[in-house]
Amino acid sequence: MEEFDFIQSIKPAYYRQSSVIKGIGDDAAILRHTNSDIIMTMDTMVENIHFNEKTAAPFYIGYRALAANISDIAAMGGKPVSYLVSVTVPDRWAPQELQEVYKGMKELAHAYQMDLIGGDTVSGDQLSLSITVLGIVDNGKARYRNTAKEHDIIFVTGTLGDSAYGLHLLLNEQAQEGSQYFINRHQMPTPRVSFINQSVPIERMALNDVSDGIANEANEIAASSHKGLLLDYDRIPYHELLAKYSPDNLYQWILSGGEDFELLGTVPLEDWDRLMDYANATGTMLTAIGTVVDDEKYNGKAWLRYQGDLKILDKSGYTHLKR
Amino acid sequence: MEEFDFIQSIKPAYYRQSSVIKGIGDDAAILRHTNSDIIMTMDTMVENIHFNEKTAAPFYIGYRALAANISDIAAMGGKPVSYLVSVTVPDRWAPQELQEVYKGMKELAHAYQMDLIGGDTVSGDQLSLSITVLGIVDNGKARYRNTAKEHDIIFVTGTLGDSAYGLHLLLNEQAQEGSQYFINRHQMPTPRVSFINQSVPIERMALNDVSDGIANEANEIAASSHKGLLLDYDRIPYHELLAKYSPDNLYQWILSGGEDFELLGTVPLEDWDRLMDYANATGTMLTAIGTVVDDEKYNGKAWLRYQGDLKILDKSGYTHLKR
Repeated sequence: MEEFDFIQSIKPAYYRQSSVIKGIGDDAAILRHTNSDIIMTMDTMVENIHFNEKTAAPFYIGYRALAANISDIAAMGGKPVSYLVSVTVPDRWAPQELQEVYKGMKELAHAYQMDLIGGDTVSGDQLSLSITVLGIVDNGKARYRNTAKEHDIIFVTGTLGDSAYGLHLLLNEQAQEGSQYFINRHQMPTPRVSFINQSVPIERMALNDVSDGIANEANEIAASSHKGLLLDYDRIPYHELLAKYSPDNLYQWILSGGEDFELLGTVPLEDWDRLMDYANATGTMLTAIGTVVDDEKYNGKAWLRYQGDLKILDKSGYTHLKR
Repeated sequence: MEEFDFIQSIKPAYYRQSSVIKGIGDDAAILRHTNSDIIMTMDTMVENIHFNEKTAAPFYIGYRALAANISDIAAMGGKPVSYLVSVTVPDRWAPQELQEVYKGMKELAHAYQMDLIGGDTVSGDQLSLSITVLGIVDNGKARYRNTAKEHDIIFVTGTLGDSAYGLHLLLNEQAQEGSQYFINRHQMPTPRVSFINQSVPIERMALNDVSDGIANEANEIAASSHKGLLLDYDRIPYHELLAKYSPDNLYQWILSGGEDFELLGTVPLEDWDRLMDYANATGTMLTAIGTVVDDEKYNGKAWLRYQGDLKILDKSGYTHLKR
């Protein structure tokens, strides 16, 4: 298939967003967003690094890569609106397989009324998918990770460790009752867009998405906010089957599993009930897992209450006593 | 070098554009462009496909890849403002080499006061560089390729074929007097941003950048404008050394050489003098190379007056008599 024909095959028949003045078909796309701030994120996923034949059929490669980018938009408190895709394709790939990658993205994009507005298709040795997502947020209303304050409640959406365990099942070709749940969570993660868009009335919220595990994300919020994030291990939410199937590694899965694309954040105590209402309204599981402190002894780091001790929680999920 | 350290090493110390509300350092970048339309383009360049060790040192890989994207912004009549870079790096690359790639981009970005606002660094077998550039243009003032009209003058900036001939010299390791000129034109192309930004007062202009050769670009304007583009071979500008060194292939170099990142466009006859003034004011070579016609017999295609005949000019640069 020629590049021109391929572009025709993936070109949208129409654009869902009125902001798209010009989509695919000129040197670049033209968008009009006069009343919003623009959010821009870009990520790349590469064959044999981020996925392989065991872990993802072409459809899921596309779906998951776009989900990861949308999750970054959610983590800024925004709404995803359009995306560009640059794909590097080995010659051994059939056009139908490549179209499956685009179908996976299209399915997720449809859920958010997002438009594919550009990109590139080139040859290479390894399948690689670079996606740029443009999102919008009301002027000055973006959520940053540096706004946590003392007495904030630390929250997380969903359950943690599911995606990493799903990947583990795929890599080891294990199947047991309920394993499809974890595999789905790995292949088709749900960015928390609707929850975070409902939460716009809440004035202040520090926010990160869980791409590298909450140990890492909590440290990022702690470091950039110059506060201490104290997490209670016993309150961290996980799926009951994860504890049943993998009790010995539960700690690793939930603290450093990563790629759940849930949201980890902090809100003022007085906004907690409202936030829970927004979670309920959008069918989002929401759990309070700790508290923010402002104390020289704790600031700049994440800490974990685990089996009676309060220890420093490293980015990697390890704990230790001394800084 | 850890990814974190690498990101720190390429992170700008400050942002040049006041539109950058948040640059690198959160889940995504935040930009504010309230009075402009947004232009978005994304391209990927891959080792051994778009460049190799012979054709580009790391610095030039970065420079040229960013230039190609900026050229797309120019071709929409816009001004480039920020960029995101996703790079896939083989383990055999030293951090210093990768930093050279970023230095090449930075040098060009500096000329346009552009800011690096995000991206990604991942491992892979092949060096691959995906760049997203965001540009701006006054509301409703983007230049498209579908606006050519009857009696328009067809123009091109600069000289054609230089980049393709420079690549040829690099691949064949030929050096002769003046060959550095062509090599520079290949490795450090100049997107025509200042010329096109000066030309804003001109109401209508059909525009394309020369990435695949003017035969291709003229056909794109002809097809999307539903007009005939009649080019005079004898008026197409080229460097005198190109004719001297490669007389037998001159035709191919200038019609289908590609990657010169010059601009090919059409303007109303009455705007020609003004356009020439803008070209002079920005030190840009500008040449009229043909006329737009509106005639069933010619519409939708590019045509070439060559050695006394008027023939159909294929996208690839070949000519023939019948459609």
